[in-house]
Amino acid sequence: MFKHTRKLQYNAKPDRPDPLMARRLQESLGGQWGEVTGMMSYLSQGWSSTGDEKYKDLLLDTGTEEIAHVEMISTMIAYLLEGAPFSEQDAAYEKDPALASVMAGMDPEHALVHGMTASLNNPNGFGWNAGYATSSGNLVADMRFNVTRESEARLQVSRLYYMTEDEGIRDMLKFLLARETQHQLQFMKAQEELEDKYGVIVPGDMKDIEHQEFSHVLMNFSDGEGSKAFEGQVAKDGEKFTYQENPEAMGGVPKTKPADKRLHNDQG
Amino acid sequence: MFKHTRKLQYNAKPDRPDPLMARRLQESLGGQWGEVTGMMSYLSQGWSSTGDEKYKDLLLDTGTEEIAHVEMISTMIAYLLEGAPFSEQDAAYEKDPALASVMAGMDPEHALVHGMTASLNNPNGFGWNAGYATSSGNLVADMRFNVTRESEARLQVSRLYYMTEDEGIRDMLKFLLARETQHQLQFMKAQEELEDKYGVIVPGDMKDIEHQEFSHVLMNFSDGEGSKAFEGQVAKDGEKFTYQENPEAMGGVPKTKPADKRLHNDQG
Amino acid sequence: MFKHTRKLQYNAKPDRPDPLMARRLQESLGGQWGEVTGMMSYLSQGWSSTGDEKYKDLLLDTGTEEIAHVEMISTMIAYLLEGAPFSEQDAAYEKDPALASVMAGMDPEHALVHGMTASLNNPNGFGWNAGYATSSGNLVADMRFNVTRESEARLQVSRLYYMTEDEGIRDMLKFLLARETQHQLQFMKAQEELEDKYGVIVPGDMKDIEHQEFSHVLMNFSDGEGSKAFEGQVAKDGEKFTYQENPEAMGGVPKTKPADKRLHNDQG
Amino acid sequence: MFKHTRKLQYNAKPDRPDPLMARRLQESLGGQWGEVTGMMSYLSQGWSSTGDEKYKDLLLDTGTEEIAHVEMISTMIAYLLEGAPFSEQDAAYEKDPALASVMAGMDPEHALVHGMTASLNNPNGFGWNAGYATSSGNLVADMRFNVTRESEARLQVSRLYYMTEDEGIRDMLKFLLARETQHQLQFMKAQEELEDKYGVIVPGDMKDIEHQEFSHVLMNFSDGEGSKAFEGQVAKDGEKFTYQENPEAMGGVPKTKPADKRLHNDQG
Amino acid sequence: MFKHTRKLQYNAKPDRPDPLMARRLQESLGGQWGEVTGMMSYLSQGWSSTGDEKYKDLLLDTGTEEIAHVEMISTMIAYLLEGAPFSEQDAAYEKDPALASVMAGMDPEHALVHGMTASLNNPNGFGWNAGYATSSGNLVADMRFNVTRESEARLQVSRLYYMTEDEGIRDMLKFLLARETQHQLQFMKAQEELEDKYGVIVPGDMKDIEHQEFSHVLMNFSDGEGSKAFEGQVAKDGEKFTYQENPEAMGGVPKTKPADKRLHNDQG
Amino acid sequence: MFKHTRKLQYNAKPDRPDPLMARRLQESLGGQWGEVTGMMSYLSQGWSSTGDEKYKDLLLDTGTEEIAHVEMISTMIAYLLEGAPFSEQDAAYEKDPALASVMAGMDPEHALVHGMTASLNNPNGFGWNAGYATSSGNLVADMRFNVTRESEARLQVSRLYYMTEDEGIRDMLKFLLARETQHQLQFMKAQEELEDKYGVIVPGDMKDIEHQEFSHVLMNFSDGEGSKAFEGQVAKDGEKFTYQENPEAMGGVPKTKPADKRLHNDQG
Repeated sequence: MFKHTRKLQYNAKPDRPDPLMARRLQESLGGQWGEVTGMMSYLSQGWSSTGDEKYKDLLLDTGTEEIAHVEMISTMIAYLLEGAPFSEQDAAYEKDPALASVMAGMDPEHALVHGMTASLNNPNGFGWNAGYATSSGNLVADMRFNVTRESEARLQVSRLYYMTEDEGIRDMLKFLLARETQHQLQFMKAQEELEDKYGVIVPGDMKDIEHQEFSHVLMNFSDGEGSKAFEGQVAKDGEKFTYQENPEAMGGVPKTKPADKRLHNDQG
Repeated sequence: MFKHTRKLQYNAKPDRPDPLMARRLQESLGGQWGEVTGMMSYLSQGWSSTGDEKYKDLLLDTGTEEIAHVEMISTMIAYLLEGAPFSEQDAAYEKDPALASVMAGMDPEHALVHGMTASLNNPNGFGWNAGYATSSGNLVADMRFNVTRESEARLQVSRLYYMTEDEGIRDMLKFLLARETQHQLQFMKAQEELEDKYGVIVPGDMKDIEHQEFSHVLMNFSDGEGSKAFEGQVAKDGEKFTYQENPEAMGGVPKTKPADKRLHNDQG
Repeated sequence: MFKHTRKLQYNAKPDRPDPLMARRLQESLGGQWGEVTGMMSYLSQGWSSTGDEKYKDLLLDTGTEEIAHVEMISTMIAYLLEGAPFSEQDAAYEKDPALASVMAGMDPEHALVHGMTASLNNPNGFGWNAGYATSSGNLVADMRFNVTRESEARLQVSRLYYMTEDEGIRDMLKFLLARETQHQLQFMKAQEELEDKYGVIVPGDMKDIEHQEFSHVLMNFSDGEGSKAFEGQVAKDGEKFTYQENPEAMGGVPKTKPADKRLHNDQG
Repeated sequence: MFKHTRKLQYNAKPDRPDPLMARRLQESLGGQWGEVTGMMSYLSQGWSSTGDEKYKDLLLDTGTEEIAHVEMISTMIAYLLEGAPFSEQDAAYEKDPALASVMAGMDPEHALVHGMTASLNNPNGFGWNAGYATSSGNLVADMRFNVTRESEARLQVSRLYYMTEDEGIRDMLKFLLARETQHQLQFMKAQEELEDKYGVIVPGDMKDIEHQEFSHVLMNFSDGEGSKAFEGQVAKDGEKFTYQENPEAMGGVPKTKPADKRLHNDQG
Repeated sequence: MFKHTRKLQYNAKPDRPDPLMARRLQESLGGQWGEVTGMMSYLSQGWSSTGDEKYKDLLLDTGTEEIAHVEMISTMIAYLLEGAPFSEQDAAYEKDPALASVMAGMDPEHALVHGMTASLNNPNGFGWNAGYATSSGNLVADMRFNVTRESEARLQVSRLYYMTEDEGIRDMLKFLLARETQHQLQFMKAQEELEDKYGVIVPGDMKDIEHQEFSHVLMNFSDGEGSKAFEGQVAKDGEKFTYQENPEAMGGVPKTKPADKRLHNDQG
Repeated sequence: MFKHTRKLQYNAKPDRPDPLMARRLQESLGGQWGEVTGMMSYLSQGWSSTGDEKYKDLLLDTGTEEIAHVEMISTMIAYLLEGAPFSEQDAAYEKDPALASVMAGMDPEHALVHGMTASLNNPNGFGWNAGYATSSGNLVADMRFNVTRESEARLQVSRLYYMTEDEGIRDMLKFLLARETQHQLQFMKAQEELEDKYGVIVPGDMKDIEHQEFSHVLMNFSDGEGSKAFEGQVAKDGEKFTYQENPEAMGGVPKTKPADKRLHNDQG
């Protein structure tokens, strides 16, 4: 169960409105790697967890924090849209070409659909969807996903940082950068502990089952020779990579039977 | 540019048809973490790469191999659907309850839309989409994504393995398990080399910019005490985690202005 | 069965082309609350209706009218796109910065995909989908949906009105505003009659089953005190709201069992 | 900002596992009208609100409660999936036809993708997406949406109630039924207060602008005579409905110009 | 503008309920090639048409007919769902295994979301979306799309025919088969006339611009020799196909520059 | 199985960067009719084919070529984005209004998400999805789809051609135009051969089953008289079209029964 305080986790107030930055910040809200993806993934993983309390708690702590990040970015976007242009009168090219250019570049749904407040979409108006989130039941795999989520998210925040010089926006981004550093580090730590327990290959106990003659071979399917550089290097599981210059097709030519006539697979 | 041989990379022939396994295998084809996600992500990353040949080549080698995996699984699915029931006559409950149960559980679109061949969907008929793929321009982040992709995919293949006893299916899965071991290991190796160069935090050069007082703090937003276990431990960047028992809201209560009257934000 | 006349229900001709307004009008066509949502929802509800003729007929009347609104808006968009710029030559910044700004803000798919005619998307190019429509079998719930649809749609039309000064566009919008007034009122009337019959809570006959001690309690999960204002007020079903200052978690800490080993839920 | 307690808001424990009910309950989690839709809509509306504290607080209270409902249903689904069948060995038709029938009807991704825990999808595996949520900036419209959300959701919970006889599931559903009664009533109350202030037509101040001759006319586009029953009745705004037996097309036949040759609109 | 009669275009009544067929028929309603795709594509094309009346009228005639087909299939589905099982009591395996098998195979959302009436989804619950429809402004291309739509749709109807022996369903399918024959033939006729006018290559007037040395070459990228059979044959534009045994890569190795540092494209 | 050469099939290098053209070219990559649709459709059809080698091989040849087209367009987009503006400093309106206009019109995710490289989306940021592809098992239908795909794609390439004067872009487009000519012609040839074998109506053998009295009738549902022009003309199957001025509703008024009380279909 959750409780909410109206106070934000950290400052989310720009120095001045900027509807173009409002649009860009939607990536950190409703984009593939945005805060909703973090929130829904970590909470789902935490609720599903049946193992050690420390991982379950870490996931729930972080998932709960991410709701606050969604809140902060939603708030920032609303501030950035204050007084944004939306009509011909506001931003006719003849009267104010700079404003007309802003209106050309902003998200038209911010005005039309949301009354100048945030949406749950990315900057191109594509809505957040559950296909972005992950909760597999296997914490090693999911910790890797979480480290990735925090990496892609921090990369985007870093790019956003250089897209503005507004000190209010930058203040919030500096906070998010720091939290995403922490989240990368904590999930890496959890990942490493779990790898120590289950092995570096996910999942850990299928090694005796797989066709091991193919499990450490760099296969050269592209004509670049670059990947040969890994040949002979020691993989994380202690074995060495071999290199196959010209991998052959081992599987023969498939030949399925024509389908039942009633399916009308007219095939020539 | 690509060339194709009709021969499969490895065997993809079951001992006998099984339309329920055909449905499940769609996850490895068109699901969130399926082979199409690997193929499209690695090729996109490879084509975008501007750096060291060895990473570019590794990505293109693996992306090219994944097309062959899509081919193998498509072929396997077609074999598994050979002679599958689709009509009342084939599988009336009264005549053959076991077959009726199979028909209840198979994907009805396999017959209706694809004439008993593979789709590009997951087992629930949800189509593959680009929101599953990733190509960010930052190889450290993307290598982490790739390790995750191979981990989630291998996890699913491991689960598929225990969903059947068909030796033909299992032979193919054993091969995929091995390749996904190799792909996990190779992308981990690349990830580690890139981390050595750019740092373990993605992206590497924003440390001086972020609000560092928040970058190593475990914040306790859930009442479990489990995450306290990480307190004092050394993070991968060499610094220690601290623990904040009761993180406070630092940001104040936001107060945005009412919108322009013409937006009709009637708010009470 | 349907018949079509080439004549429009009402005027849909702008005074002059305006590709930016063309883009914005797509919201009323293919957006979440656009005319296609009305058309598909009301027709589906009407076809599904098994009850009183007057509701069934009302739904089919209105659903049929909405097809005509889709037609009008499609027509308006095509007029607005007449002669729109699409090439470097048409709208090079150096030659005509105002036109270049228009081209930056218009939907690039209008030219590229639709040859300067309407799409079935919203202004951000996100296509209409069935997740926007509703037909539940319960007319009280669906009438509420319909009133909402007409409210959100009329809100957007009102915003569109202030985004242009073109009298031709405004003429059409004034007609749509009026029809959406009628549709709000008629669905409200139907809703009220149905509430009189089935009760104001949807669905009507589960009152004795629900845990009634929680059915009139304002629970305070956010630290604002605002919602306390409803305490003691009379709800639409005649009972009074109570207020719970500090709602407790009544459900205990869940503890699910670890999954079958074959699922590889490595959890630490 | 949010805080989380591991304790659930209310009981979410079934008497026994039931993977078919687990699948059905996904509707209340990730479906169009499920708890995620409530959570994301109410929080977004609350964060966007600039008006009276009591509405803002009500929205944030309820949005925060809905996260707890997502948590409860996720927990319930995990319990229901405990020990669910997923392999041929578990549920071969020959050995246990009842179990084979269960496996045919359950969501195959519960085992394959989520290791027998909840997803963010509906029962057909279609993921939650932002197109289900609404936050328009206009609270009258959005309160109507919220009443609808709670009506459709409670309808589905009522149907779920009759799909099982498990007293543990029913206990949770009885609680959700009661909360959805409260939420319907509270949002109706807010809606009515806002209607008193802004008028029953959304948005309130476009009456003088719209073409009023069409704002109270039942237009008969379907051959049923049922809707005539509303003729002469008093609408909620105090005016009477009129009825148009045979509405004419007022708009003329549109005639747009052929497009620029470079668009290749070959039209015959 | 449209008018509706409550009478169906043709019979849509089964001999008996069958919820499995109800599910399958959803493909013809909300699937990729279903009637909604026809309706929305043809109406959009018709409304966009600026050319010869006969094509515009043909499109509008057929688009209007397709709404009636959506109506018929929706009606048929509702009949097929009459009395369908939805609860444990209705269809407990122990009491009635045949009914339990039916419930395992039917769409759970038919009961839960739609109260045993049709949805706008395909049989896997994936909703219709605008990405299925086409309206390009070029009638030659779109007539080809329309012929394809009618071909894929008739193929599915043919498959549906063999999935049931219910004479009521078959009666409706026989009618749809005939109409889809007509629609294939009429769109082919229009296509041929338009090809006569604009040429068989779409669009017609780019021949002098394209690199003609590549416009009639069968390039052999797969090791099968089958496509060589077309060598020397006369293409529809009167020229002969040549065959390139081993097509070479003509484009060189691309080399893009590293991105701006501020984008953090760490690439190794 | 596939092999890759780093060399491109053809030149894909513009004379100069142009982020607006980069955005537009996304249509040919990730749009409904883009190269990914070709690649995934033809490969799927080829892998599913059980018939004559020449069609199977043709599909696999072309599907393999399309991967190379995806590669070329991805490369071109990356070149076009070299040095694109993304920050306020780069493109402040006051400093450089032309650049600000470019930034307003480009895809903001190119910088933010992809580090100035290609995505798998269309120009509006809508991701490629499997609903665009087709593989039905029936080659006549699918060849028609393929001809359509190549027609719509070539139409878009023709439009792109007139959107730029960059000779580098145009060189690549001239090549794609030629290949799409070839692909239209080869699939038409295959289509015709298959029609000769199976008949022009897809699928070929349902003629005796359909209600033939409706299979050659132009039904006039729209008030235009244009379609009457086809009356008496000879259809491709040798029969003549008749014309029905005023098609009647043959199906009666449907009347489904009220649903089970437990579904709460409150209908009035």
